[in-house]
This record gives sequence, structure tokens and C-alpha cells, in this order.
Amino acid sequence: MKKGRILTGDRTTGKLHLGHYFGSLQNRVKLQYEYETFIILADVQALTTHFENPGMLSESLRNVAIDYLSVGIDPEISTIFVQSLIPEIAELTIYYSMFVSVNSLRHNPTIKTEAKERGYNDLTYGFLGYPVSQAADISFCKANLVPVGEDQVPHIEMCRKIVRRFNELYKPVLVEPQALVGEVPRLVGLDGKLKMSKSYGNAIYLSENYDDIMKKVREAVTDPNRIKKTDPGNPDICTVFSYQNIFNKTEKENIEELCRSGRIGCVECKRILAGKINELITPFREKRAYYEAHPKLVDEILIAGTNKVREVAKETMREVREAMKINYFE
Amino acid sequence: MKKGRILTGDRTTGKLHLGHYFGSLQNRVKLQYEYETFIILADVQALTTHFENPGMLSESLRNVAIDYLSVGIDPEISTIFVQSLIPEIAELTIYYSMFVSVNSLRHNPTIKTEAKERGYNDLTYGFLGYPVSQAADISFCKANLVPVGEDQVPHIEMCRKIVRRFNELYKPVLVEPQALVGEVPRLVGLDGKLKMSKSYGNAIYLSENYDDIMKKVREAVTDPNRIKKTDPGNPDICTVFSYQNIFNKTEKENIEELCRSGRIGCVECKRILAGKINELITPFREKRAYYEAHPKLVDEILIAGTNKVREVAKETMREVREAMKINYFE
Ligand code: SF4
Ligand code: SF4
Repeated sequence: MKKGRILTGDRTTGKLHLGHYFGSLQNRVKLQYEYETFIILADVQALTTHFENPGMLSESLRNVAIDYLSVGIDPEISTIFVQSLIPEIAELTIYYSMFVSVNSLRHNPTIKTEAKERGYNDLTYGFLGYPVSQAADISFCKANLVPVGEDQVPHIEMCRKIVRRFNELYKPVLVEPQALVGEVPRLVGLDGKLKMSKSYGNAIYLSENYDDIMKKVREAVTDPNRIKKTDPGNPDICTVFSYQNIFNKTEKENIEELCRSGRIGCVECKRILAGKINELITPFREKRAYYEAHPKLVDEILIAGTNKVREVAKETMREVREAMKINYFE
Repeated sequence: MKKGRILTGDRTTGKLHLGHYFGSLQNRVKLQYEYETFIILADVQALTTHFENPGMLSESLRNVAIDYLSVGIDPEISTIFVQSLIPEIAELTIYYSMFVSVNSLRHNPTIKTEAKERGYNDLTYGFLGYPVSQAADISFCKANLVPVGEDQVPHIEMCRKIVRRFNELYKPVLVEPQALVGEVPRLVGLDGKLKMSKSYGNAIYLSENYDDIMKKVREAVTDPNRIKKTDPGNPDICTVFSYQNIFNKTEKENIEELCRSGRIGCVECKRILAGKINELITPFREKRAYYEAHPKLVDEILIAGTNKVREVAKETMREVREAMKINYFE
């Protein structure tokens, strides 16, 4: 018996990187054995920012799916599905939109930030409604848990509010999801930037090979005061060391000591790190190679997952229509 | 060969009255022989104002459908369908919402009026998006004509804009609808109010019997200066006469003369009018009686119409997804 149903997923705006793995994927892989796991490939959400170039979604969708499969999401256990192929999510979004005020959307933190940058009136209608459609994404399948970091809790709160209002207005057929708050470790960028992100160009992708990894690690920021390799270094202010801390738990203490006493050079230290990252990624890369050689299999997994979720969605919408008394012909 | 496809319909917020007949239904009955006619029972649109009490939609839906059938919409020729049973409309609404700005919605006349009354922030998200969902209602079935009055032309213009933008962004698969502008005669209220409307309580329903009609006509506003029936009257300022003008074309000149010369009393004049209205409505009432006695038949008509339209909707969405290149598995 599993402990509940999880809804998790990603926008399909590009392949995933180490930051994703570290921040959520590795946790998902663990959770799938405890919880029934639904993973949404959120291509419709991706459209809110990529409507001018939706052609990239097709490739992204498959890349993200292969990323999932590569890191150990097991399609026999977890269900990966495509958002745009579940029209019930669109229907539920429309029903929710009837009772969510423009005001409450304007107070949403994500909308506020975006409105500040672009001007409120220049937002698209779809962007303004992002919290509504997110509530539909989570609740159409009656997920009771959404794994998030502390900073995401307000989003889940908004979803809970919307679902609660539906249940009060009509009939309590929908499930108020809970945030499954876990520590979401954030990977700083190897370039010293606050986080690893595609848009900063500092990401190590889960699909990269050793040479690419080495190249990126080589350019990483270290203790700037260290000139010669015999100079004592300060690991506390070195991004490379913060990575050793994560990816090289067995050697990190030793490296720290060698660094502080000027007995290891940064070049060597980086080589070790790149090796460790490569060690982590190698099995992913092997699995990836298999799926990339079998694109039909990937499609089959997505189609099967989507079909399964579609049945859940249909049943939910049957209940939604019944609750609203608009199940005219049943 | 028909001249094109028309999309028309009503919100399912109650039964229809003489104002509807006069303003649009009689025209639709005529148009159905010239154009392929799709008639939407807009229950989702009705939800924007009736989300707190959707239970009434079920009865309204059938009432409006029977109104259509009673006045001569022929289900063998025209296709009547239920909006909420076409999820493709919700999907298309979501796709449109990605590129329609909040700004353009705020400039829509309907939204402006409502925002003035209720305050912009208290609008629901669904209400704000009314023009977007209306664009989806019209374009999902590639209607090329929408019969409207002059005052509705800006709404069709908004829909055209949205469709044009879609076609430019992706691929010209959707049809820009044209407004089929006709004179939309407006019936003043028998109580002297600007128009006949359910909310004014001055409506004569297409389902009413002679006694009810007589009762309402009896209370109608006439020339207020007339006290005795031998006083000369002024038909120009008499709402009853404006009805004679419409519903009693053969006798109106005679009545005008009799009134001006004080040779007909208002009671008699109203009796004649009630008779004429009853004459118009009697065949509707007879047809209605038949359909009310055969509720299953009505449901069958709506289900068949909805199924037919659903196929059209599916094909449109197939093309929409292809145009957007999100037809991943095809
Ligand atoms: S040796 Fe390693 S930990 Fe020390 S400064 Fe160089 S890169 Fe950083
Ligand atoms: S007789 Fe008829 S037209 Fe003349 S004032 Fe009376 S109701 Fe009006």
C-alpha cells in the first residue's frame, strides 16, 4: 500500500541539468516507491512563455522524458504524462476561472514579480491565470501531495484555496493537496552565480559526457586569492569545494585539508570533481543511450502514461460535472 | 449548396421570450435554409454569471432547446449542441489565452462596463476572459458567419483579431468569422421599459398561454393622457401600439385611426393585441407540448447535435495541434 498520490513534473522547456537532479529528481526517484507518482510534462505551462515558438516543445518533451527515465524514474511504477493531451485539465481550469477573482491572482507572488518586470497590462491572460491552471494540473488527478521546497508553499496554498472553494460551492469531490515540504537543495552555479540555470549558461546537463563536464568544471570559480598551487587555499569561499561537498562526500575532508595546506592544486581538485560528477552521470548516460536508440519505446511510455491518467481525469470530470449538476445526460 | 457556416446560440440562463424571438430566433429559422447552422447552448458562458447556482443550467438548457424547436429550428437541418460537452472549446480557450494580453481584454466594451459596475479587481478571471472564450466558441467549428446586431460587431472584431493572430503565429488553419450584420429589432417592454428582459420582469415567454399573455398586456403602458375611451388617443407614445405595429400588421392602420378618433378603448385594443400575440405563439406552444411530452427525444437531439459538433471540434484541434507543432505522437 502506497501512502498517497504525488503530482510532480516540469515544464518542457529544455533538457534537465544537475540542478534539477539535485533539487528534485533524486528525491522523486526515492518517493516513487512510497507514493503513487504522477509526473506531468507541463507543455501547456511551457506555452505561457514559449507560445511564439511551440515547435521546440516536441523535442523538449522527449528530452525531459528521457531525463526522467535515465535518472531512475521507473515507468512501471511512476506514470509520466503529457499535459496538453489531457483536455480535462483545460476544462477544470475554465470551471475554476469562474470563481477565482482577478484580485487574488494579482496578489500571487509569481504574477506580482512578472507584473513588476513587464507591466501588469502587458501580461497575457494565460500568464495571469497561471495559478488557476496550476490548481487544475494538481487537482484533476486528486493528488494529495506535491513535493515542493519551502518557497513553493504559497503556490500550493493557492491551489488548496481554489479546490476548497470548489468543494464548498458544489460538493466535496476534489482533494485539497498538501505540500510535501522537503529540503530542496540548491546547487550554486560553478561560475559562482546563485544557481545552476539554463538561462545563465552555467548548467551541466544530465546528458553531458566527461569532456563537456571537464570543460565546464575547468572554468569554475575557486578561491581567487590562490595564485600558485602551493598557496594555502580557502575551501569556504570556493564553489568547486561546495561541489566536492555534494558530489564527493568520501574525499571532501581530505581535499579540504590538502587545499588549506597548499598540497593540492586547483587543476587537480577540478579533475577529481569532474570525475565524480561523471561517475554520477555515467549510468544516466548509459540509460539515456538506450532510450535514445529506442525512441518508439519512449513514445509508448508517454502514450501509455497519458492514457492511464486520462482515465483518472475522465472520472474526476464525471464527478465534477455531477457535483455542479451539469451532468445533463447521465 | 449552403452559403457558409453560421454559429449562433444563447446562454442557458432561462427560457426565451418574445424579445428573443423578434430579435434573433425568427431570423435564425430563416437562415437555417441558407446556411449550415450550428447553435450553441452556451452553458459554460452562463456559468460566468451563474457559477453559484449551476443547478439551474440543466432545466434552462432543455427550456432553451425546446424554445428553439418550438419556433421552427429544424434539428434535421440545424445542429444544436451543448458547449460544456465540447472540451475542445476549453482547450482552444487555453491556447488563445497564451497570446491575448490582459490589456486588450480591459479595453473590451463588455468588460469595461462590468468593471465599472463591480470594480475591476472583483471581476472573476473567467469573466475577464469572456472575449477569449467567445472567440473559441466561434472559431472551434470554423464558423465563417455570426449573425449579430450592429452593437455586437466589436465582439466579432475581437474574435477575428484572436483568430488572425493564431493564424499568423502558427499556420492559417482557423477561419476568421464575419459578422452577418442584420437589423436586430428590439422589442420595448410592454411596461414602457427600454427592452423586454427577464430581469425587468416584463417578458412574455414563448411558452406562455393566452391568459398569461392577456394579463401582461392588460398592464401595459398606453397613452397616459387618455382617461375615457372616447378621448382621442396618441398611438405614437403608446407601447401597446408599438406592439400592434409589429404583431398586427394587417389591422394596425385601422387601430391607429380608431384610437386617434376615440373610437376604440384601450381595453379592447389590448385584447386584440393579446389575441395576435397568442396567434403567433399558439403553434410554438403546440410544438412545445409535443417536445415536453417527449423529453427523451429532446435529449437525443442534443446528444446527436453535440456528437456531430464534437467530431468537427476534434478535427479542428487536430489541425490546431499540427499548426502549433504539438502533435507529438501523430
Ligand atoms: S584546491 Fe580545490 S577547494 Fe582548494 S581552492 Fe582549489 S578548487 Fe577550491
Ligand atoms: S387605444 Fe390602443 S393604441 Fe390607442 S392609446 Fe389605447 S392602447 Fe394605445
